[in-house]
Amino acid sequence: MHFASDNWAGAHPAIAENLMRRNGGFVQANGGSDFDKSVEQTFRDIFETDLSVHYVGTGTAANALALSAVARPGGVVLCHPEAHIRVDECGAPEFFAAGTKLEGVEGQLGRFNAASLETAIGHIKGGGLNAGQAQTVSVSQLTEAGTAYDLDAIRAIADIARHHGLPLHMDGARFANALVALGCTPAEMSWKAGVDILSFGGTKNGCWCADAIVVFNPGHGRQMDYLCKRAGHIASKARFVSAQFEAYFADGLWLDLAAHANAMGARAAAIIDARNRFRLAWQPQGNEVFAIGPQQAVDGLASKGVQFSPWQPPRAERHLVGDGEAMIRLVTSFASTDADIEALESALAG
Amino acid sequence: MHFASDNWAGAHPAIAENLMRRNGGFVQANGGSDFDKSVEQTFRDIFETDLSVHYVGTGTAANALALSAVARPGGVVLCHPEAHIRVDECGAPEFFAAGTKLEGVEGQLGRFNAASLETAIGHIKGGGLNAGQAQTVSVSQLTEAGTAYDLDAIRAIADIARHHGLPLHMDGARFANALVALGCTPAEMSWKAGVDILSFGGTKNGCWCADAIVVFNPGHGRQMDYLCKRAGHIASKARFVSAQFEAYFADGLWLDLAAHANAMGARAAAIIDARNRFRLAWQPQGNEVFAIGPQQAVDGLASKGVQFSPWQPPRAERHLVGDGEAMIRLVTSFASTDADIEALESALAG
Amino acid sequence: MHFASDNWAGAHPAIAENLMRRNGGFVQANGGSDFDKSVEQTFRDIFETDLSVHYVGTGTAANALALSAVARPGGVVLCHPEAHIRVDECGAPEFFAAGTKLEGVEGQLGRFNAASLETAIGHIKGGGLNAGQAQTVSVSQLTEAGTAYDLDAIRAIADIARHHGLPLHMDGARFANALVALGCTPAEMSWKAGVDILSFGGTKNGCWCADAIVVFNPGHGRQMDYLCKRAGHIASKARFVSAQFEAYFADGLWLDLAAHANAMGARAAAIIDARNRFRLAWQPQGNEVFAIGPQQAVDGLASKGVQFSPWQPPRAERHLVGDGEAMIRLVTSFASTDADIEALESALAG
Amino acid sequence: MHFASDNWAGAHPAIAENLMRRNGGFVQANGGSDFDKSVEQTFRDIFETDLSVHYVGTGTAANALALSAVARPGGVVLCHPEAHIRVDECGAPEFFAAGTKLEGVEGQLGRFNAASLETAIGHIKGGGLNAGQAQTVSVSQLTEAGTAYDLDAIRAIADIARHHGLPLHMDGARFANALVALGCTPAEMSWKAGVDILSFGGTKNGCWCADAIVVFNPGHGRQMDYLCKRAGHIASKARFVSAQFEAYFADGLWLDLAAHANAMGARAAAIIDARNRFRLAWQPQGNEVFAIGPQQAVDGLASKGVQFSPWQPPRAERHLVGDGEAMIRLVTSFASTDADIEALESALAG
Repeated sequence: MHFASDNWAGAHPAIAENLMRRNGGFVQANGGSDFDKSVEQTFRDIFETDLSVHYVGTGTAANALALSAVARPGGVVLCHPEAHIRVDECGAPEFFAAGTKLEGVEGQLGRFNAASLETAIGHIKGGGLNAGQAQTVSVSQLTEAGTAYDLDAIRAIADIARHHGLPLHMDGARFANALVALGCTPAEMSWKAGVDILSFGGTKNGCWCADAIVVFNPGHGRQMDYLCKRAGHIASKARFVSAQFEAYFADGLWLDLAAHANAMGARAAAIIDARNRFRLAWQPQGNEVFAIGPQQAVDGLASKGVQFSPWQPPRAERHLVGDGEAMIRLVTSFASTDADIEALESALAG
Repeated sequence: MHFASDNWAGAHPAIAENLMRRNGGFVQANGGSDFDKSVEQTFRDIFETDLSVHYVGTGTAANALALSAVARPGGVVLCHPEAHIRVDECGAPEFFAAGTKLEGVEGQLGRFNAASLETAIGHIKGGGLNAGQAQTVSVSQLTEAGTAYDLDAIRAIADIARHHGLPLHMDGARFANALVALGCTPAEMSWKAGVDILSFGGTKNGCWCADAIVVFNPGHGRQMDYLCKRAGHIASKARFVSAQFEAYFADGLWLDLAAHANAMGARAAAIIDARNRFRLAWQPQGNEVFAIGPQQAVDGLASKGVQFSPWQPPRAERHLVGDGEAMIRLVTSFASTDADIEALESALAG
Repeated sequence: MHFASDNWAGAHPAIAENLMRRNGGFVQANGGSDFDKSVEQTFRDIFETDLSVHYVGTGTAANALALSAVARPGGVVLCHPEAHIRVDECGAPEFFAAGTKLEGVEGQLGRFNAASLETAIGHIKGGGLNAGQAQTVSVSQLTEAGTAYDLDAIRAIADIARHHGLPLHMDGARFANALVALGCTPAEMSWKAGVDILSFGGTKNGCWCADAIVVFNPGHGRQMDYLCKRAGHIASKARFVSAQFEAYFADGLWLDLAAHANAMGARAAAIIDARNRFRLAWQPQGNEVFAIGPQQAVDGLASKGVQFSPWQPPRAERHLVGDGEAMIRLVTSFASTDADIEALESALAG
Repeated sequence: MHFASDNWAGAHPAIAENLMRRNGGFVQANGGSDFDKSVEQTFRDIFETDLSVHYVGTGTAANALALSAVARPGGVVLCHPEAHIRVDECGAPEFFAAGTKLEGVEGQLGRFNAASLETAIGHIKGGGLNAGQAQTVSVSQLTEAGTAYDLDAIRAIADIARHHGLPLHMDGARFANALVALGCTPAEMSWKAGVDILSFGGTKNGCWCADAIVVFNPGHGRQMDYLCKRAGHIASKARFVSAQFEAYFADGLWLDLAAHANAMGARAAAIIDARNRFRLAWQPQGNEVFAIGPQQAVDGLASKGVQFSPWQPPRAERHLVGDGEAMIRLVTSFASTDADIEALESALAG
């Protein structure tokens, strides 16, 4: 009954085995080998465009380094108040940019919209030098609420960003889950919708340690190798990341894994929907399910060995949680099984 | 004929296999699992003392984050002019400490001595506020010249550092190679000799990606978790590092691998010693062999497919290289074979 | 009719003349002269305690450097959402601490209370490593709303801060105005109430350029000289600041100037209170008056040559401003005259 | 007998009086007033070109902020080993650029030449990602050895810099002294010779506190206001700097003051040249005189009340100082008098 997070699982067997397969022989270090380049080409094929890929150690590094590549002095990143970059990365985006401010643009279910963004940018511009300068817009896909921006919403945000000369960053720690949820292509959900820089996560979806910065705008990528190197994020034996991504993309494995995780999320949500002590906080779109129930029932669930996270309700959704109630988050993954769902069902029924 | 660097090899089979073995099941993320803790305990056993271990993505991250943990405003790190932290990490130590200066303390064959260190510290103290403040002393073991400090030399440096209230950092990217060369215990070569913080590298000696900061002085480690997290250097699936170190330490594998690499280095050195067109620049102590020969012979070696690095002679050894000559570096590793040595011998003979 | 800000005036004549008086002769540079030390002693006399004083170039530098002296990795400063340090310093506090986050603790009229602070700290602690660590509490005195914390409120906040091991910083850009408003001693409003580090501003109250960091806790001041020097904030001819503070403190000039500015603020407020097109947003306590009126009346005031600032209403007071209305800020200073008030009265009457 | 430094004097009376004259009335804060703009125009007139001027608090701030405006990740600034930015600013250039490295390019008497610069840049380029990237070239005019680059030398350095796409910075803390020494125009010694960014110092030459960054290349200045603001280096009552520069430039006062200081330096040098216990280390070009004498004679000079600085001989000139000897520096200024020179003469004679 493992619903704590999608990084409690190990690596998918096909990925782990490919690591074994790519283990032999000598290969140029630091990502310069032909093998590394062939995997970089796979990224281009999948995204149907020219781009540069930069492996880094974690999703936090991907976000923070991507944002630092487009940082400016006194810069302000506009993102959702509950965005992972703003509240869950121990100040990494602020640190890597030597002082960026992350300003929340409010919106429901983890998403802000173009109109709110426009207001927020206007507010900064109205503040003169004191207020610093708007620097970047960042959306999370999936969001912290487990929801996805639809393509129109991303495009509308990108239009505002472009109008103000701001690059658009996407935190794609769960890019695959969002992609499967929307049923579109990687290109449609990224550069075609106006995304300039993407944090592309493989770790939560079946890799050991495979996170990358994908730069669609060559201008933004110019300094990326230096940024990654001075951050200690260029692995000397880089092929161990390439090998993971090779297997991840082969035969659409990554989409299968995300589809499985999402389907398991939907099943978990369906169970909760049918119980009387818990209710869904909102309809999930990917592999994260948010539920509300009496604190007593939450404690009971934990005592039955269900692993989940107690969840601070987002500001915009605080009203959904009544007195004596609590919110929880359940996360499914490529490794979730029928048995997990059944055990959860029993635990809820108890 | 792979002598370019010790990170061109993959992982040792025993380490790769252990990764497979530890792949199954769910484990708490971010290094908090019982398994992670058991491997941390192995570090304590091996170093025969209490300590804290912090995994990071690369050796550069280990060095830069370790140094940042003891940084002070206007701080100056004292190290050898050719130290990796000073010239080969793209400014990472400067970046992570938001501006540290790395001051070279000269000495032959990659090593400075206690007297030179004392002079250098005195020079900074004499400069008042303008000169900033001495902050940390750092030694590399093996050094960039492939040599090792003997225990007396480390202790003498540690005495000076302690006298001035400065912590002593050791860059142990090739800790195992030095350890085998000296034939002492890990404790003797680190905290017993006065080392406060150690960058402990497993990657060059047979791991995929296993670097750690080992903190002997609890005071220095207090902020380390925050430093690592905000640097994006806390892997979510941390067990993939723990699994590598588990196998690395099991049955003394790490020492066997280093002993093999050093032995291969000695064999490569012996070959060079016997040739007439090349000569050893100095006697190697680990797995790095520096040779000098006519530029023409160097080019010839490369044309025969020997992979090595052309090497900028250290300032203190520049006089060893005559007109029309060049210096090269050959590196052996756990994966070097008899065939490699024989092929090198043929190439040299050619 | 100069109500734009208290830094549009020059220096008070007594201060300007003292600069002339102290101009002759040679004096040790960088603040080390006997004269500089005698003025530092005056600070001790006025605050009735041992302390260290560090001159810096601006109030922004005072705040940012003071906060950086107690910064920790992943650190979070707790302050009011509208605090100057959070929204009006172009990211200086974030920059000088290489990445600090400034978290808003909400409260009315520019002040937060101890209970809200406790909740905010608890929220960070509950977030684990991801959320970083609470680092410092900062209050502004006067606040951005021109109000003052009373002594009990400061003490209650200081108790919470101390309980959690957090230093308490006070942004005293308008320290003198608050002091006069409360009618207490400098000691009572600072260290006796639990303040550890104070940004002490003289510039807005009649100096040319005289801002200082006052450190009551010697531990926090240890690195301050290095922090100021590497920030380019140690003036070589420091006596030009000492000379200003000498005259500022002599015969209680600073209190007289603040009393005058506050009295002028009260007169301005009284006028507004009596008009029918404007109303006071809230009762001022110092030299800043906030008024609300129809946008048309605001435009009319500007067209009559009254210099003031249009003001974005604080989140907690947004409800005070009706449709078609706007908020403005009027600031009085040591240099405000009867004529200014009369002219304002006429303009309002128009 | 004040020869310690040119910042031990106060302000020149004409400058101090202008501060009084500009004290009255209300003026827009933060440098936006018509008066501020008229002084900025004077800079354009004097340099005969379009440019932007940014006042900062100190020469250290001017250098560090100027360099940060053109910083790149892993960046290396090339300058003389003894350059003030490299050894005398407590790490400010490293701090403001979040980690820049300052690499010494050796040369005699405080000056490096174009050929050495070319070699140093080549060395960095040869080091790949590990070595970071060359970022900026910086010359000091006067140098730390009190010498001046002639125009040809600056142009040759600028050619190399431009060839490699690197901006050229000039540390002009003693710009006026160098200008007078060379007898050329401000334009000839700066942008016409290839300088992109200039730290322009008025403080050492008769101002209280007047340092500025002059940007000739508009591209480099784009972010300068934000950089200065977030560094706390935009004075709210900026007219107090404008007033100093107004008087400084009026009727060529600045050149007269520098000519006087240089002449006094020449007189001091001539005295030393004639003594038998001291000798000139090298011929001074501005207001700094370096002398060598027996340690005993140095101590004697100090005991007679002559204020000077003991001086660590530059690496390239260390051979000039014999056993038992020491080097000292004597600095003259706008405020040096005949009596000072005569007293020095008596002290030397003693």
